[in-house]
Amino acid sequence: MKKLINSVETLLDESLRGFALAHADIVRFSPDPRYLARLAPRKPGKVALISGGGSGHEPLHSGFVGLGMLDAACPGQVFTSPTPDQMLAAAMDMENGGGILFVVKNYAGDMMNFEIAGEMLDFPNASLLVHDDVSIPEHQGMGRRGVAGTTIVEKIVGAAAEAGLGLDDCKALGERVVRATASMGVALTSCTVPALGKPTFDIAENEIELGVGIHGEKGRERVGLLNASEIVERLAQTINEELKPAKGQPVLLHVNGFGATPLIELYLVYNLARQYWDSRGVVVTRSLVGNFTTSLDMAGASITLTLLDDELTRHWDAPVHTAALRWGC
Amino acid sequence: MKKLINSVETLLDESLRGFALAHADIVRFSPDPRYLARLAPRKPGKVALISGGGSGHEPLHSGFVGLGMLDAACPGQVFTSPTPDQMLAAAMDMENGGGILFVVKNYAGDMMNFEIAGEMLDFPNASLLVHDDVSIPEHQGMGRRGVAGTTIVEKIVGAAAEAGLGLDDCKALGERVVRATASMGVALTSCTVPALGKPTFDIAENEIELGVGIHGEKGRERVGLLNASEIVERLAQTINEELKPAKGQPVLLHVNGFGATPLIELYLVYNLARQYWDSRGVVVTRSLVGNFTTSLDMAGASITLTLLDDELTRHWDAPVHTAALRWGC
Repeated sequence: MKKLINSVETLLDESLRGFALAHADIVRFSPDPRYLARLAPRKPGKVALISGGGSGHEPLHSGFVGLGMLDAACPGQVFTSPTPDQMLAAAMDMENGGGILFVVKNYAGDMMNFEIAGEMLDFPNASLLVHDDVSIPEHQGMGRRGVAGTTIVEKIVGAAAEAGLGLDDCKALGERVVRATASMGVALTSCTVPALGKPTFDIAENEIELGVGIHGEKGRERVGLLNASEIVERLAQTINEELKPAKGQPVLLHVNGFGATPLIELYLVYNLARQYWDSRGVVVTRSLVGNFTTSLDMAGASITLTLLDDELTRHWDAPVHTAALRWGC
Repeated sequence: MKKLINSVETLLDESLRGFALAHADIVRFSPDPRYLARLAPRKPGKVALISGGGSGHEPLHSGFVGLGMLDAACPGQVFTSPTPDQMLAAAMDMENGGGILFVVKNYAGDMMNFEIAGEMLDFPNASLLVHDDVSIPEHQGMGRRGVAGTTIVEKIVGAAAEAGLGLDDCKALGERVVRATASMGVALTSCTVPALGKPTFDIAENEIELGVGIHGEKGRERVGLLNASEIVERLAQTINEELKPAKGQPVLLHVNGFGATPLIELYLVYNLARQYWDSRGVVVTRSLVGNFTTSLDMAGASITLTLLDDELTRHWDAPVHTAALRWGC
């Protein structure tokens, strides 16, 4: 294993310290328990939006802390849930009279720990569950994983909270975005978790994993190497069957890299996904291409589609000022 | 070789088409000869800033086309210089009464082709050479390569051109930025050029290449695996010996990923580089961390330092609206 680290034990704190120094105009870092909090002033009564999860998916969630998106993010160790004391400390710090909305990706550890934190809080709070990975049938096992659609959910609900929506309305809006969002990914290689020191899974030089999870979880199908058109067709078709966008439906198309796939390939995937929906009369009105929900050094990408309406589009377009997304301010 | 492509022949055009579709509010793509041009309106007499080079380094240069940075970018095939007809077409399209400034990284093919294009133009034009890779002695062979400092040069000169500086002044300012900028990188793995189908160079599981070029060119030294602190010490020291920043000197610190290195590691590298200069009383006033000058799927990173003054800081902070850098508008 070759990585730019000093030790598995200090990796997370060294990295978070660097992040907080590089973005000292946007966030502050509380080291014990660990969370990143936004610096931008907030209107009294604004719902505080807090997320978190295992590290190794950066810029998710730390890169989304700031005006118009998250109030705080709680980073766990690599691919490991943060602990309830982190969410509790972040919530008590960020509570601003409007209650707390936790954005939780659908993984057992994350759900349990956010739930424990919520129960310990003595002010209003709620959880919004993200489960956009349509490679998995909806009611199988733990259900669908939260993957790259999380970026879309956090941006839209973040804008709504900034605009003054209350806790129940933010949660309802978020659930609407989750229902309107579907993602599916493909892995070309495994990732390597530093503490493990070797690839999470084995995959041959002529194989790919369709429907892979963002921690290298088994996908829907292991198949022989396909070209980009064939891969995009499989991902887009699964997403399309789920969301069934009508002709003329405005959508947001997000192509997300898992970390080691160059932008030249991500834009090629975008071009193919765009052709897929253009040819069906679905209208891509908003786009996001890049590495946003990563899996350390995994090669591969995912496609996410969100059905838009005027309200969601307005919140997507609203000003955001974070390390990873910035526009309108 | 596993890549999200259809064929080596169509990769570039498919990707550029995707890029232009995803950023249709910022750029337009001219396919034959290939260049990307900004859409933002320009004041009459504004110097047109045009760059280009081999593809595979994205977001450099395509991601830097737009208000406050480049007027156009000419992408060659992967790691291959663009041809003079591309620069010529882009220049004739973008000439706006202020002449053309070509920003050229120091590689033989790029220099030759930009020079040919400049000679064929019948309006004022000049070239600005970027050669910030201090891993190479200044007068050895072709001299120093243009690497990640290019982002800094294009941002600062782009802002100056937008502010109305003339051709000679933009070139002089750019040369001042180049002199004030030094970069050095480290590769943990090779990259794989699609047309070649195998890694550009061999490197053992316990070796790293200090001072590597952005096409996988041989660096200063092949050494056994070092930890991040040792690596950053070597890079920072070489840069520091070159620029000799005084105590109290304001600087811009840029940690650039080569493509396959996760953000969690890049921020850790930033933290260590920051410690290096903080401890010497050098004042990091501006920062940029992320994948900006990449080498396809190479794992590794580079550090770039630019000595700032009020003028350079003002141009760095000026509004920019491109696919890869956006603030202030």
